[in-house]
Amino acid sequence: MPQEVLTEAATEMLDWHGSGMSVMEMSHRGREFGIIYEQAQADLRELLAVPANFKILFMQGGGLAENAIVPLNLSARVSPPGAAGSADFVVTGGWSLKSQQEARKYCTVNIAASNESDGHTTLPEPASWQLSHGASYVHICSNETIHGVEYHTLPNLQALGSDAALVVDCSSHVASRPIDWSRVGLAFAGAQKNLGPAGLTLVVVREDLLGHALAVCPSAFNYKTVADNQSMFNTPPTYAIYIAGLVFQWLKRQGGIAAMEARNQAKAALLYDAIDNSQLYYNKVARNCRSRMNVPFFLRDESLNDAFLAGAREHGLLQLKGHKSVGGMRASIYNAMPIEGVQALVNYLREFEKRRS
Amino acid sequence: MPQEVLTEAATEMLDWHGSGMSVMEMSHRGREFGIIYEQAQADLRELLAVPANFKILFMQGGGLAENAIVPLNLSARVSPPGAAGSADFVVTGGWSLKSQQEARKYCTVNIAASNESDGHTTLPEPASWQLSHGASYVHICSNETIHGVEYHTLPNLQALGSDAALVVDCSSHVASRPIDWSRVGLAFAGAQKNLGPAGLTLVVVREDLLGHALAVCPSAFNYKTVADNQSMFNTPPTYAIYIAGLVFQWLKRQGGIAAMEARNQAKAALLYDAIDNSQLYYNKVARNCRSRMNVPFFLRDESLNDAFLAGAREHGLLQLKGHKSVGGMRASIYNAMPIEGVQALVNYLREFEKRRS
Repeated sequence: MPQEVLTEAATEMLDWHGSGMSVMEMSHRGREFGIIYEQAQADLRELLAVPANFKILFMQGGGLAENAIVPLNLSARVSPPGAAGSADFVVTGGWSLKSQQEARKYCTVNIAASNESDGHTTLPEPASWQLSHGASYVHICSNETIHGVEYHTLPNLQALGSDAALVVDCSSHVASRPIDWSRVGLAFAGAQKNLGPAGLTLVVVREDLLGHALAVCPSAFNYKTVADNQSMFNTPPTYAIYIAGLVFQWLKRQGGIAAMEARNQAKAALLYDAIDNSQLYYNKVARNCRSRMNVPFFLRDESLNDAFLAGAREHGLLQLKGHKSVGGMRASIYNAMPIEGVQALVNYLREFEKRRS
Repeated sequence: MPQEVLTEAATEMLDWHGSGMSVMEMSHRGREFGIIYEQAQADLRELLAVPANFKILFMQGGGLAENAIVPLNLSARVSPPGAAGSADFVVTGGWSLKSQQEARKYCTVNIAASNESDGHTTLPEPASWQLSHGASYVHICSNETIHGVEYHTLPNLQALGSDAALVVDCSSHVASRPIDWSRVGLAFAGAQKNLGPAGLTLVVVREDLLGHALAVCPSAFNYKTVADNQSMFNTPPTYAIYIAGLVFQWLKRQGGIAAMEARNQAKAALLYDAIDNSQLYYNKVARNCRSRMNVPFFLRDESLNDAFLAGAREHGLLQLKGHKSVGGMRASIYNAMPIEGVQALVNYLREFEKRRS
């Protein structure tokens, strides 16, 4: 989280803008929270350049809940009434694997492409995807945090001859780069990486995709119900929305998403260059799909792992241990990480390598 | 929210206990958040005297989502595999009405009793409930915020000859009084009334009720999955859990739930006495089930409503307008409202009446 945002939140904790209330005490239907909600909606729409025919929903449950909520809402979109629908999935790492597994509860799942055979280190070319006929949507995870694979261009399903809606799980890199909405049907993101606190889920959905939910879809997670009630069918996570709103204001002060993208490109280049130019460290991901947010890397001598992590901690470099399913190291360099933080990591990488050689 | 809690949260916003991190920045799997989570669980278990054979789950979606999540998890508990289950509902106001409506998506719904004919102003005697044979559970809303009806004793289903589990929506009065767990199978509560910020849902469920979810239950809302993963199957609403934990500590400093109950009894008595002893105001709810949390009242001359509300605002008495479905006035006197606040309202009630007579 940007320090400016935290400072602002601390200052306003007991009295938001002279209202005499904490944001936590506001009724979600009251005038004050209405101002916060509308501003957050407008700022996010401006930042991400969300077109007018898309709804911005503030929901709960995170990305894992969306793995069920998306097929509950979209899978039967193009099927005859009562018939089960189908959806295509492109598997590129741990998150898209989980998504297709959960969707099987609600619809037929086709794996259109997978990079499992090369250990989730490449991005299957869209031209090679085996898209199925009659699928309601094609699901991708546009940044895989565990394996460090990122789409640098969203696929153009229309150009591939598909009528399906593109569903993008962008939880871990939302607001780090622009989104080409002309290619997207629905994008969702848990807030906790780049947008705000855990407990808020962002859903941006094209209006024509609303209104096709399965009968078993809980009302609180029916996109149409949520959209028709301005995300207030159930009580929304008001304080998380407020904090996300402060982050949106901060993003605007940074110059918006284009400026964030330039910073993220510079940060990622600095780190990947240091890894590629070393004898000790290496990254397994193909260059055309390396994540700017999550940089997994390995030590060629894995017996040095513990010493590397201990030394990192001494330098104040935390949370560098890789996900248990892949091992090694991982640096997460989200929006809030300044380039100075990446430089400190690069300095440590060089120092540690030098000491060992 | 108690001011002490807000002050503490503001002070710790940028640096929790010398960790150098805001709680919002912590990984939910990290050591620091683990301490916060365990403390909150232990404090809540102690405060509410939750027996060891009940799990305490921290979820998302609020009470309205639970209206679906409960039948998704419990409705087929006692049915043959594949057969639809059934549940009994006791309708006592707006919330239980919504709950039974949502449950119809997942199971057969029997209305065991309803106070609709008297405008939701009484509590049907449990001995008169038409409990159905083979119902998985009996749902009650133990405090109806809109109509101001509260159960002062939970029904004893066993004594009524029923094997069903009692499901209690206690969203609006949890932590205001003790709960007799010997009569409860599952209790749920959105946090935003007495526990903390919106976006956190408390579920307390007896272990033997886990593991009966319908196939269409989203994994993130499967009680067994949530319980098996210590509420961390999906990223939990970490900051909301932290704030709730501060509220639990505050409740302990107040003397615990028995002390809160005594305060709430005194607050409610003060307000109901003022209403009952006036010529201008009246409350419609039968005395044996008047809510200690939500006190709806009406002016005998409704043309004075606007003047009453305007004068109240001048006295700093906010949010007194009744719910649009019932009209009139409503005072919500949750745990965090001190008796001085209720006294100020009572003083205003008397002053306004005197001025008009």
